[in-house]
Amino acid sequence: MSQSLSDKSTLVVFSGDLDKAIASFIIGTGAAAMGKEVTMFFTFWGLNILRKENAEPVKKPFVEKMFGWILPKGPERLGISKLNMGGLGAKMMKGIMKKKNIVSLQELMELAKELDIKIVACTMSMDVLGITKEELIDGIEYAGVASYLADAEQSNINLFV
Amino acid sequence: MSQSLSDKSTLVVFSGDLDKAIASFIIGTGAAAMGKEVTMFFTFWGLNILRKENAEPVKKPFVEKMFGWILPKGPERLGISKLNMGGLGAKMMKGIMKKKNIVSLQELMELAKELDIKIVACTMSMDVLGITKEELIDGIEYAGVASYLADAEQSNINLFV
Amino acid sequence: MSQSLSDKSTLVVFSGDLDKAIASFIIGTGAAAMGKEVTMFFTFWGLNILRKENAEPVKKPFVEKMFGWILPKGPERLGISKLNMGGLGAKMMKGIMKKKNIVSLQELMELAKELDIKIVACTMSMDVLGITKEELIDGIEYAGVASYLADAEQSNINLFV
Repeated sequence: MSQSLSDKSTLVVFSGDLDKAIASFIIGTGAAAMGKEVTMFFTFWGLNILRKENAEPVKKPFVEKMFGWILPKGPERLGISKLNMGGLGAKMMKGIMKKKNIVSLQELMELAKELDIKIVACTMSMDVLGITKEELIDGIEYAGVASYLADAEQSNINLFV
Repeated sequence: MSQSLSDKSTLVVFSGDLDKAIASFIIGTGAAAMGKEVTMFFTFWGLNILRKENAEPVKKPFVEKMFGWILPKGPERLGISKLNMGGLGAKMMKGIMKKKNIVSLQELMELAKELDIKIVACTMSMDVLGITKEELIDGIEYAGVASYLADAEQSNINLFV
Repeated sequence: MSQSLSDKSTLVVFSGDLDKAIASFIIGTGAAAMGKEVTMFFTFWGLNILRKENAEPVKKPFVEKMFGWILPKGPERLGISKLNMGGLGAKMMKGIMKKKNIVSLQELMELAKELDIKIVACTMSMDVLGITKEELIDGIEYAGVASYLADAEQSNINLFV
């Protein structure tokens, strides 16, 4: 705890929408680039952002299997929160971002790792949605709300996205 | 005001979705369990979380009556923000949480009371949505944005859900 | 930087929903009225709140023109996040607010200017959605995430709406 209060930032990423995921990682990587220690805590639908596209199928009960089928697997499959139009909106947004050389969500996630952002998957939400560690990307941590709160109380930028 | 800055946490609960309500109460009760003084300020659709399931009908103008019919009455009737599928998604989520012994929203709300979390209903939103005190659960406070801001400026964890 | 930490508040307005826009400006103007230095940073769909209703048409590529047609132009055209019912919900909410003498979003935005709230349009989002300065209201600033973070790290109330 030798760091001062303002050296930490924490984001709860509850949403699994592409646009909100991008906003979260732009804020997170921006803060890390400024020298802050950043924690991004992924909970509920936000876990979809951390899913591997091609994870080995995992044995689980039927309802959890159903959630697994319906929910998007990783950044490439996310929709946007408005005007998604069956995925067309997400495609349009990705197309424009590419054309204008704006970094994609995948690139932002790579950058987050390089900047040592602490990516945490909420274990309780994993339990509810029936998501296992094997289905999530590597190099992340697993914790509950107490861990989030411990980080948040030392942060001066705390956002819920 | 003898408390230090970090002893308080404040949440604005704007959303009336079951999943976001659960997330709010998990964060709120978690912070209270860590010894923090927690305020949860319910505004707009968040007021639905505080509605009694079987309140006596209250006389009010037609448009407000309509809002009263359409909007969900209390935690049992809330939908989830994604994949609600006419209530099926909410049922699936509640079913899984029960099976896994994860506390329900109703239990979290009971816990919040036991932990002395200050539950505040936003009076301006009550006015807009035509919700009266008789229709909300007991043991809560009523206040406006100035009261919220007074709590928020002393808190280091401030979230908008 | 002679100000103390608690003299600043910052809001990220990501949503372009009428109800969330109203909530943002009520919190923002409330904080400013309490003497705080407030920054409201409008990003993604939040930019719709800042669009002029009758801006001169601007030459732009087809996809961006499409976004321009679909997205609402300014506070009068915004929908609400729940029960919008093709605009009916937004009309009902505006009708009730008028009847009860609650300030409208337009009035809140005027008030924000009078209270010297710093309104910032996110330049990266403008780029993605193809929105130009000519299409946004006057008297605002243009900046990126670094500028937002610089304000946020000095603020004790930081919200993402």
